Amino acid sequence: MAVYTEIDDDALVDFMSAYDVGEVLSCKGIAEGIENSNFLVTTTSGPFILTLYEKRVDAADLPFFLGYMDHLAGKGIPCPIPVKTRDGHDLRELSKRPAALITFLAGMWPKRPTAQHCGGVGEGLARLHLAGEDFDGTRANTLGVSSWRELLTSCDGHGDNDQATLQERLNKVLDTLESQWPSDLPSGLIHADLFPDNVFFRHGHLSGIIDFYFACADAYAYDIGICMNAWCFEADGSFNITKARRLLAEYQRVRPLSDDEIAHLPILCQGAAMRFLLTRLYDWVNTPADAFVTPKNPEEYIKKLEFHLSVKGPSSYGLDL
Amino acid sequence: MAVYTEIDDDALVDFMSAYDVGEVLSCKGIAEGIENSNFLVTTTSGPFILTLYEKRVDAADLPFFLGYMDHLAGKGIPCPIPVKTRDGHDLRELSKRPAALITFLAGMWPKRPTAQHCGGVGEGLARLHLAGEDFDGTRANTLGVSSWRELLTSCDGHGDNDQATLQERLNKVLDTLESQWPSDLPSGLIHADLFPDNVFFRHGHLSGIIDFYFACADAYAYDIGICMNAWCFEADGSFNITKARRLLAEYQRVRPLSDDEIAHLPILCQGAAMRFLLTRLYDWVNTPADAFVTPKNPEEYIKKLEFHLSVKGPSSYGLDL
Repeated sequence: MAVYTEIDDDALVDFMSAYDVGEVLSCKGIAEGIENSNFLVTTTSGPFILTLYEKRVDAADLPFFLGYMDHLAGKGIPCPIPVKTRDGHDLRELSKRPAALITFLAGMWPKRPTAQHCGGVGEGLARLHLAGEDFDGTRANTLGVSSWRELLTSCDGHGDNDQATLQERLNKVLDTLESQWPSDLPSGLIHADLFPDNVFFRHGHLSGIIDFYFACADAYAYDIGICMNAWCFEADGSFNITKARRLLAEYQRVRPLSDDEIAHLPILCQGAAMRFLLTRLYDWVNTPADAFVTPKNPEEYIKKLEFHLSVKGPSSYGLDL
Repeated sequence: MAVYTEIDDDALVDFMSAYDVGEVLSCKGIAEGIENSNFLVTTTSGPFILTLYEKRVDAADLPFFLGYMDHLAGKGIPCPIPVKTRDGHDLRELSKRPAALITFLAGMWPKRPTAQHCGGVGEGLARLHLAGEDFDGTRANTLGVSSWRELLTSCDGHGDNDQATLQERLNKVLDTLESQWPSDLPSGLIHADLFPDNVFFRHGHLSGIIDFYFACADAYAYDIGICMNAWCFEADGSFNITKARRLLAEYQRVRPLSDDEIAHLPILCQGAAMRFLLTRLYDWVNTPADAFVTPKNPEEYIKKLEFHLSVKGPSSYGLDL
């Protein structure tokens, strides 16, 4: 959860007057998104989400993110649409931050994802991949495989002996990931952060995908690996193959995986676990104890990585080969 | 800000189905209220506020708080109305917490209160006092003058030398407050926490009063003292007599103060400053460094208390005597 920046009420009314969205009725900071400040603004024409972009998002990337969302929405993906002012602008400034008003999506994110949710997210992810293919914009994955070594090194020397042992272990895993990482899988724009709190459901069906601020170009199957990590483990750390099977089956109903993608699923899942493990580890060792946002414990992703290192092959994810 | 408790999506849909409010469209934790978890729930019939009461609110007081809001709303005070289920219940349970659904109020709280806002709050406070007179319920002020000594003592020995000096000073002020505190001023139900973030405005006019979870029986003029502390000081700590004059004038247009109330304004303002100083000091010395909510620095209220101790009399608050 996060609300970092306060909005002056007069400044908000002034900001909102540039849009054709009626009169502002209220503005509440909401616990949605980790990187930015989000507000639910109700107007006489309904609810909207107002996002102020905080420093962890590179302002230069914002036109890409907003354009990508707009493009996806136009292709029928249920994602927020950046609202344009009467002058045609969607990226503006408020409280000295880049700011955008986006449409509100009905639905709730699943606190306890079921296999049905996993199926929905698999299908939604495949549709998102296809819908982005003709988008005229791109963004490099700044948290891709080539960034992981430096991220790991920057966690060095902050911890105790356990930490040193962990670093050593992760360095060895990274050696393998770097040498065996596939470079010619089908690629395009991926969400890259499709965790349960970024997916809304209504009556059991996917009704919204939000938070596109990690979207970038990478292998589609790597995005599946991110989702498998985020959706298919239970709270006790165990892997739920039924959920994975549903996720993969529903994905493939829309976009069948190539043999090459399937063969690489284990290493892609390892990499996805490594990526979230490393950013969490980085925040864990670098966040001051009195910080506003409590960092997520990397432990969960250490266990997930170990699982993916232990699998026999793609069949361990529920694929009938 | 505060969202302490997570709500399961299925449990929410089940909970909401007991009301005639349409279908749930979304539920967002909002940064409103310090003591409880608040959610903005949008349904097909509009927005509502769902409050889960956390441990700092005594569950035994909840029927009083909800009944009082319902009563005030019936008298035209723009406060949230507890929504009743089809079976007539307004106090229920969700996520193992007492829970209530209340109506949503349009408006925004003023981040930079002006004299006009202060006038609005003065008038609103007087109307609230009058509207509560025939409410058939009451609640003792557990944070009234008789509680302050124990609160101060419980902050003992947690701090350094500065803290010890402060405690000594506050004990002396308390001696005076206890011996001179008025006991026969006009009394009734007061809001007792009418800070800017609990008052919404729209087009410059008061449109909502929220957060009644400190409401209790006490002297009406003490509630004015709380508002003077909360609304009439500038960010640099200086007292703005123009704002105080407006607040008092608009209050008196609705409910004129007696000579006795006016004469006691300085000590009531001192007491109000002491009450917030003490709870902030208590939280300050007792909150672990890694706590979720950052406690408010008591320093602001030490300065306010010193101001009220320095005034010559009621005329210092802008009253023409």
